[in-house]
Amino acid sequence: MVRELDLVRWVCQRAPENGDDCSVLECGGWGTLLVTTDSVIDGVHAHWDEYGPAVFGYKAVARGMSDVAAMGGEPLWALIAACLPDAVSEEQARAVVTGAEGAGCRLVGGDTAFGPTTYVVGTVLGRAHPKGPVLRSGARPGDQVFVSGALGGAVASGRHASFRPRVEEARRLMDACDVHAMIDLSDGLATDLRHILEASQVGCRLEAARVPCNGVPLEQALSEGEDYELVATMASDQSPPAGFVRIGTILDNPEFVLIGEDGKEEPVRIRGYEHGSR
Amino acid sequence: MVRELDLVRWVCQRAPENGDDCSVLECGGWGTLLVTTDSVIDGVHAHWDEYGPAVFGYKAVARGMSDVAAMGGEPLWALIAACLPDAVSEEQARAVVTGAEGAGCRLVGGDTAFGPTTYVVGTVLGRAHPKGPVLRSGARPGDQVFVSGALGGAVASGRHASFRPRVEEARRLMDACDVHAMIDLSDGLATDLRHILEASQVGCRLEAARVPCNGVPLEQALSEGEDYELVATMASDQSPPAGFVRIGTILDNPEFVLIGEDGKEEPVRIRGYEHGSR
Repeated sequence: MVRELDLVRWVCQRAPENGDDCSVLECGGWGTLLVTTDSVIDGVHAHWDEYGPAVFGYKAVARGMSDVAAMGGEPLWALIAACLPDAVSEEQARAVVTGAEGAGCRLVGGDTAFGPTTYVVGTVLGRAHPKGPVLRSGARPGDQVFVSGALGGAVASGRHASFRPRVEEARRLMDACDVHAMIDLSDGLATDLRHILEASQVGCRLEAARVPCNGVPLEQALSEGEDYELVATMASDQSPPAGFVRIGTILDNPEFVLIGEDGKEEPVRIRGYEHGSR
Repeated sequence: MVRELDLVRWVCQRAPENGDDCSVLECGGWGTLLVTTDSVIDGVHAHWDEYGPAVFGYKAVARGMSDVAAMGGEPLWALIAACLPDAVSEEQARAVVTGAEGAGCRLVGGDTAFGPTTYVVGTVLGRAHPKGPVLRSGARPGDQVFVSGALGGAVASGRHASFRPRVEEARRLMDACDVHAMIDLSDGLATDLRHILEASQVGCRLEAARVPCNGVPLEQALSEGEDYELVATMASDQSPPAGFVRIGTILDNPEFVLIGEDGKEEPVRIRGYEHGSR
């Protein structure tokens, strides 16, 4: 069994243009193009019969928009490549497109096939902020760690299928602060923040009392995933805009720990949901 | 049953950025970005067990490169979104990537999932020629129609899985000529040239004796598809580079006819292969 990260990492090693959440392509005279492509597959990321066709279009584009925002960029254009069931109705096919358009990014093209499976692959193109694309590898000891909103409960609430990508939040944050590292939360804070720590070769002390939870236990808020909130690190003299909540501090040693409300420190062991494994 | 063209056309009508083979995105100061996304699905466009994983990667990128060339542009970067069988080996997964790289475009990113089906969606980004992107709608009465190579036999010969996208040919043609309309031959000359005629509201007289055939009957050369040669129209005072063969003339009335070697004219009725229908 080949795990997802292996193949993507192998591609990354070969392509210096491969950033974290997006590929980073220099278009001299215009800016830095950010591009990402993501699959939404029936039975893996969503269920066609349960959620309906619009969710497939919406989620395929919204996930890519979240990836562009996670690098501090602005999503501009989207394309979708869909494979739909042979028996799909015109109304359902149109709902895929209107769902994709509903994510809030300009839909400029697409490809449709009919076949033995159902999926929508979204490709989103955006432009990096003039300050440059934000990578996962820039976190520094002493940085404060912020999150853009409350975590957990995305599946039960349906937010995993209708989340609003944090594009506005990313723009306001980039305008106001020098962001050192950023990621969006698809697999849960415990897993995704760990990506920043590993890429930056640092550790983190999370403060349990500060992590905003959507009415779920802390453990679920840390591990459930599909929040699509942003996690960003920046020096302690920076003041992010309203809505960003400080949840921890970057450490120079590589430990990843949680301080409980009782003041006791324990390692963060919780692993988030891994796509393709459920 | 919703046919492929319906959904794509519906998207096109809503997005002025949607060109013919690619979306056309203005990046002021850098140039015009061309982007296309195409699926290669097991059992629809290729057979995993028969052709192997490298063909999926190769074809997903090569088809997109051909689309960029068909608008007169230069492919620059590619991404792939793959869904692979749960039981895929590391060697097979790597073969998808090396296949994609083998198409000759810089692979800069990707996404991998594991699921109930097997596909590779290729997204290719390129830059339009300084003369601008070539559309299907620019053919004019009196234009000469050229093809970049011989047609037919792509499936039996295996060329459908290993074709070389006509990127060099497109560049030499664009440098040398003012091209009015262009398309690449995925569905067969009869079908794809008809797209130019309909978009340009013109007709065409093909000369049977001039159509280069890969050792197959003319009818097969006109209808089989997957040739990925370029068909271009330009004024009669233009001289395309070596390798382009003149096969007909654009007419001002909307008829699409073939002059046989006996001098008799008959309507072109042959429809090419339509994806998803076999």
